Amino acid sequence: MVKRYLELRSLDEALRLLTASFPTPSRTETVPVTEASGRVVAEPVFAQYSVPEVSVSAMDGIAVRSRETIGASDRTPLSLMHAVRVNTGNVLPPEFDAVIMIEDVWEDGGRYQIRKSAPPRQHVRPAGEDVKQGRLVLPRGHLIRPFDIGALVTYGITEVVVLAVRVGIIPTGSELVPFGVRPKPGQVVESNTIMAQVFLSEMGARCTRYPIVADDPDLIRKALQAAVAENDLVLISAGSSAGTRDFTEGVIRSLGDLVFHGVAVKPGKPVMLGNIQGKPVIGLPGYPLAAQTVLREFAAPLLEHWGFAPVPRFRIAARLAQTLTSDPGFDEFVPLFVCRLGNELIATPHGKGGFVQMATVKANGYVHIPAPVEGYEAGTTLEVLLTTDPGSIGRTLIFTGSIDPALEELGGLARNEGLFIQATNPGNTAGISALAGNNCHAAPLVLPVNAPPTAYLPGSLFPHSGVLAFIHIAKIGLGIASRNELHVTDLLHTRFINTPRGTPSRVVLDSLLAKEGIDPRQIDGYLQEVHSPLAVAAAIRDGFADAGICTSGIASAYGFFFLPVAIEDYELVMRKETLSDPRIRKLVSLIRSPDFRAVLEKVGGYNLTRTGSIRVTDGEKSLIPSSVEDLPEAPDYPSSS
Amino acid sequence: MVKRYLELRSLDEALRLLTASFPTPSRTETVPVTEASGRVVAEPVFAQYSVPEVSVSAMDGIAVRSRETIGASDRTPLSLMHAVRVNTGNVLPPEFDAVIMIEDVWEDGGRYQIRKSAPPRQHVRPAGEDVKQGRLVLPRGHLIRPFDIGALVTYGITEVVVLAVRVGIIPTGSELVPFGVRPKPGQVVESNTIMAQVFLSEMGARCTRYPIVADDPDLIRKALQAAVAENDLVLISAGSSAGTRDFTEGVIRSLGDLVFHGVAVKPGKPVMLGNIQGKPVIGLPGYPLAAQTVLREFAAPLLEHWGFAPVPRFRIAARLAQTLTSDPGFDEFVPLFVCRLGNELIATPHGKGGFVQMATVKANGYVHIPAPVEGYEAGTTLEVLLTTDPGSIGRTLIFTGSIDPALEELGGLARNEGLFIQATNPGNTAGISALAGNNCHAAPLVLPVNAPPTAYLPGSLFPHSGVLAFIHIAKIGLGIASRNELHVTDLLHTRFINTPRGTPSRVVLDSLLAKEGIDPRQIDGYLQEVHSPLAVAAAIRDGFADAGICTSGIASAYGFFFLPVAIEDYELVMRKETLSDPRIRKLVSLIRSPDFRAVLEKVGGYNLTRTGSIRVTDGEKSLIPSSVEDLPEAPDYPSSS
Repeated sequence: MVKRYLELRSLDEALRLLTASFPTPSRTETVPVTEASGRVVAEPVFAQYSVPEVSVSAMDGIAVRSRETIGASDRTPLSLMHAVRVNTGNVLPPEFDAVIMIEDVWEDGGRYQIRKSAPPRQHVRPAGEDVKQGRLVLPRGHLIRPFDIGALVTYGITEVVVLAVRVGIIPTGSELVPFGVRPKPGQVVESNTIMAQVFLSEMGARCTRYPIVADDPDLIRKALQAAVAENDLVLISAGSSAGTRDFTEGVIRSLGDLVFHGVAVKPGKPVMLGNIQGKPVIGLPGYPLAAQTVLREFAAPLLEHWGFAPVPRFRIAARLAQTLTSDPGFDEFVPLFVCRLGNELIATPHGKGGFVQMATVKANGYVHIPAPVEGYEAGTTLEVLLTTDPGSIGRTLIFTGSIDPALEELGGLARNEGLFIQATNPGNTAGISALAGNNCHAAPLVLPVNAPPTAYLPGSLFPHSGVLAFIHIAKIGLGIASRNELHVTDLLHTRFINTPRGTPSRVVLDSLLAKEGIDPRQIDGYLQEVHSPLAVAAAIRDGFADAGICTSGIASAYGFFFLPVAIEDYELVMRKETLSDPRIRKLVSLIRSPDFRAVLEKVGGYNLTRTGSIRVTDGEKSLIPSSVEDLPEAPDYPSSS
Repeated sequence: MVKRYLELRSLDEALRLLTASFPTPSRTETVPVTEASGRVVAEPVFAQYSVPEVSVSAMDGIAVRSRETIGASDRTPLSLMHAVRVNTGNVLPPEFDAVIMIEDVWEDGGRYQIRKSAPPRQHVRPAGEDVKQGRLVLPRGHLIRPFDIGALVTYGITEVVVLAVRVGIIPTGSELVPFGVRPKPGQVVESNTIMAQVFLSEMGARCTRYPIVADDPDLIRKALQAAVAENDLVLISAGSSAGTRDFTEGVIRSLGDLVFHGVAVKPGKPVMLGNIQGKPVIGLPGYPLAAQTVLREFAAPLLEHWGFAPVPRFRIAARLAQTLTSDPGFDEFVPLFVCRLGNELIATPHGKGGFVQMATVKANGYVHIPAPVEGYEAGTTLEVLLTTDPGSIGRTLIFTGSIDPALEELGGLARNEGLFIQATNPGNTAGISALAGNNCHAAPLVLPVNAPPTAYLPGSLFPHSGVLAFIHIAKIGLGIASRNELHVTDLLHTRFINTPRGTPSRVVLDSLLAKEGIDPRQIDGYLQEVHSPLAVAAAIRDGFADAGICTSGIASAYGFFFLPVAIEDYELVMRKETLSDPRIRKLVSLIRSPDFRAVLEKVGGYNLTRTGSIRVTDGEKSLIPSSVEDLPEAPDYPSSS
């Protein structure tokens, strides 16, 4: 067995080694106060002068001698001998010791008349009230906020000495091309160091990205030496796995000490820490999601340990929509999508692959599964760390079921209206379960035309609020998609790919074969199942199969030949009360819009005669026509968090 | 009565008018993807090519033909005829359809040996797995995060069209001097527009600050016309009250419509909204805290309504340490300081004046008191919006009682060690109450030398965990401070200022006068009370009194003549178990440090012979010596949130 890691550290131990092995760099820099927001004070800041420097009026009104106001009342108004009009901030002339608000002043033959006495110092801002010359304004360690800058400017402070750190980031890999160059097959655009630069710059680090270094130990050594000399922390991207061209560990050992290589964290296992001339060198894995984990869970905590302010992280509690498994012994970070369903927050896992960057782009949070935990059951309440504005959660609808391109197009239109649809594609059966379990706003389902809803949506699944609403998106053809023209009899000479037993497509296909007298076992790959028609199309596109059952819309979107077998309804199914959610109402108007029809006509493969019509089940689960307007308002459906 | 506002709108109505009266500006701008973090997508972003473009290996290992691996097991290892070494990301040669991880590969005479079969597509990343060419990556309205930028770069996207808005900010006021110029008495550095620029820039606005305009309606009109022509939103600072030189309302009326002037919000009441050529003009009040409220509660929500991402706001629940009153009918925003005390978060109000910028600099959050609420009782649990990193809360100690300069110096040393002391100065009695009510970590108290603790800290106040610890800071003199040399008999010819009956200073003074045979009622101002010795010194400095009772340390800090009357102990008093809090242990080591002694010697007025010694009360509330090390660890004292 090829040895991969010396030893796999726990995340806790790795973090302890990371923060304990290096002294805090003493680097600071002086910045103009106007550019100091988000920075951390390195040298205490003191007021340059008192504010105000002399006593001033705190109100628009008249400056008075408080002694002369004694006795004024509604019944015995007093006309003042000595008084002068002052505006807020005006210097209080020394002969006066109080101010009366202009609202409480009447005019009486050229004199000011008052009806209430003024105690000494009323509405007077004594000298130094806000701050006194030489007093501490910002202590060391203070994170400077925009409103602090108003105070600094007021107190005569023009620049601030703040914490600074230089981070050098080296991309390595012969397969990399720089940002802006189109990669050839097998090449990848170098993006991890750009991501690192953007992420760490927001914490206040000054980052230098070095040019891409090819997989050559001597070149890597040279680049690393230069970066260590010029920076307080060095990140070296990739070359940390056990590939034949993974030289990072060897180069670190040749220049200094390897502190660890390999941590029980997913993604991010190949993370590496070196110590070269007392400076930390972090080896980032090449997979983007692994690199993200190392940036967020290693590089950021090191900067925090050095006094930098953490990136804001919002923690919320959400109920897990699907069971989430985890390797025990590994701290695992899983992207999640959180949405609001009724009064609950629901989190749906979003793939755990280290390479699918779209998973984190689409996710709005993540969960940290500690090493001892083997996973969480669906329904568990988890702490989720949000990666986006918490307010956006209330603008999002979650759909679970069978995703057809028609729904993706609808999602695009909705997004442009400020409404986000988060659609997952586990297939019809899982969609119905999600709907029954109240884990989604609606289930997009492919249903046999005019089938009684009980056939697929048995009442036993919906014991409470059993009335369902069906919004018709389109009629879609179900049939056999293939890269080349194909007839039913050709199925015996093809590599097939199928959807699971019990799915509408499988039912249609089985009856077709029975009609044609073909034994399914004769078809190569008939028992090879993927979860949805979209996955069937992907398998054909990727060359793993030649033909499979899918919908006309999908076949059209992929440019496949399509052999129609049946017509089905593509319906958005939800509990009836969900129809009154203002977000769903907006969605219905989008489904009925000319824009949506135009888009579907362009994709092709849809029959739009009933698009946008709504039916609801009655007590017997028959379908009766309905409209959004007929429905009562749903009680208490908050539209935002 | 001089009319001030046309009509006072409610905050809700004002916000409705603000968001409903103006169309969303259509401004966008194209930014390089590397500068897009924090911006909001204005035009949907699509993948430029599929990633990966061809199938690649997902692991370091060997590419194999899955058919040829069938049958491999531990008992029947298989040596492969066809296999090639691949690294992660390498193009999978077309003749192979699976990858076996290098960890699962043995070498056998120049051939690769395996002990487990590989299903087709194992560890293969099919073409387009991450993203397919032309697919939506970021929808309109998406807030771009650092990790999104990695994906954009990978997908060949080099620039993004994002929402943009131009905000013009006009400072007005003849009393203003520009940033960097030292103000003369009655002048103020223009800071509100700088604060506005920093704050709104962080939301993604492009701000232009115009030069300061003097209080001249024609000049203001000219500046406003230019700013409206060049921007989507204009803020005009000050001139919105009812002073003789408040021209903003008139100028807005002359150029367009006044939507409202005056909102029932504190601070920020004079806020104004105009509509000039369909563009919003917000009149900011001049007081910094009022301007902050208007920026945060009016300008920011308008930008949010226009699609910009809100500034992150952390909401926490905290228990109110002191009763907080509020004007019914006004939405009030009060700066608060939140700290962790045991397992509870405690919020202490931090002054409500609109001008004391130090109040928001020192605060780490604020509370919104809705209009119908008249205030909150001490002990109420409130929702607090934090203005700082939530983690800093765990690093903060809250002290309530009598603040002597010695404690402020200690705070400075502690801050440099990452420990924040938040000290409020309501005096001895309020400090003891705060300690009894568990509203502070410790009470700094001025106590008669060797007095039994029961005299000031009766057991009845501490029915539970009644054992108290006293950390001795210094012996300080108590006496009469004055600007000029003064003897006891001079008191009859002076304007005096006093601390409340029952305070240690007052007790000492009363007995001195009795001894000297002076009737207190003969002394001018003897009954004029301020809450603490520090307030006494401030009153003398500000000229409201000539002499008063205070401590030697304070008199020394203010440079006053000091007539010693008695010696007192300045003690930091806390529940005994608090001593084991690691933050308190750190503080004790600071009190005992040569640095602290040196600082106090420099200030002068302290006797340091017992500094840093610790005594605890026994059952009878006598004091017995103790040390930090003697004490058991406090259970469960979390050091961070």
